[in-house]
Amino acid sequence: MRELFKQEMQQLGDDLEKQGREVARSMERAASSLKDANLALAEQVIDADKRIDALERNLDEMGISLLARQAPVAADLRTVVSALRISSTLERMGDLARHVAYVARGRYPDHVNEGPLYDLLVEMAEHATVVGARVAELLDTHDLSLAEKIEEEDSILDQLHQKSFALILDESLDTGRQEIVDTVLLARYMERFGDHGVSIARRITFLVNGVNAERDESMRDVAESHEPRI
Amino acid sequence: MRELFKQEMQQLGDDLEKQGREVARSMERAASSLKDANLALAEQVIDADKRIDALERNLDEMGISLLARQAPVAADLRTVVSALRISSTLERMGDLARHVAYVARGRYPDHVNEGPLYDLLVEMAEHATVVGARVAELLDTHDLSLAEKIEEEDSILDQLHQKSFALILDESLDTGRQEIVDTVLLARYMERFGDHGVSIARRITFLVNGVNAERDESMRDVAESHEPRI
Repeated sequence: MRELFKQEMQQLGDDLEKQGREVARSMERAASSLKDANLALAEQVIDADKRIDALERNLDEMGISLLARQAPVAADLRTVVSALRISSTLERMGDLARHVAYVARGRYPDHVNEGPLYDLLVEMAEHATVVGARVAELLDTHDLSLAEKIEEEDSILDQLHQKSFALILDESLDTGRQEIVDTVLLARYMERFGDHGVSIARRITFLVNGVNAERDESMRDVAESHEPRI
Repeated sequence: MRELFKQEMQQLGDDLEKQGREVARSMERAASSLKDANLALAEQVIDADKRIDALERNLDEMGISLLARQAPVAADLRTVVSALRISSTLERMGDLARHVAYVARGRYPDHVNEGPLYDLLVEMAEHATVVGARVAELLDTHDLSLAEKIEEEDSILDQLHQKSFALILDESLDTGRQEIVDTVLLARYMERFGDHGVSIARRITFLVNGVNAERDESMRDVAESHEPRI
């Protein structure tokens, strides 16, 4: 039973990593589709979203079945519940990458916009791509320095999001209405992508620190406690 | 132990209802703040969001502690996990109501916009208010006809969201850039509010139907099974 439990926990982690890699790749491709008005990449992002959604459903079933059959406590319980939440956040990040790809596809063969607004969106897309990559890496390694990096990238995304409004409202720029609509939405999608990345980073940090705190605690206590520390 | 468990499940349900009522009230007030350029109401929505967030944190702790100590299975497990997810969705709906209030506050003492765009946003806000009210009622009564009503309101919100783009792009209307930005964001916030309402409606439907299916099953089986049906 215990061996099976360990295998299942491992599977849960592996699937989460896989979902993270899919999301990272989607945002990278969505960014390129935006930058290069690349229709094929946009289509790939839209297709990949189905796989990301399916991974979430699998993780969900696996996690709940695990809770029901194994009734984990303490760090294990926290890990399973966090995995469910992280998976649901990754699913949302996949949606946002898809939304970006939709806009790129909708304007093809044109670019979504040009000039300073184009530069800004491409810059945001690059930072969103870094967020996706760091989240995937964090899920794999649990290296908390990546969590800090994600917070930094998110701050940059927030600043660029603010800057997008200033540029949009700058009447000296000849910006059409469709460009304004697209820019408002794209900047919002990418800013939200960053927020979700931070939410995952904080969850992993809490999890790693919590597990460590628990380990330290059990080092002090001779009798290992099975009381949950949640 | 069993008595305590029942009490705790009850408390979980009560807190979720309370959170639902807070969210419904917030969207109602956000809608009025938009319609009447009412600063006091906008401030109330912004303040209330802290309470909605706190309710989520409480529900979270209670739910996880319940999973750890009581290790519920079958319908009870599904109920606890769903409560955590619904609470997290309500938290997000509270954020969206707050975002609407922010825009209203930002333009005070002016209205956010005027003419057909104003009419459209007020109409969307009315439907979002209905979604909020029906979600709160559904959490209270588990009457599934409310879930259908929520789906209908969400469809209307989606249609109005589409219509907002047509109006924004209508060059015969004299619409300023700030108005375009505000309208794109507000329409998006309210459309998302509807989506989240639907997600809760579907979860409750699944829960009620699942629990009913399980009850039917246990009527057939003489020996009540404790095997999870998830």
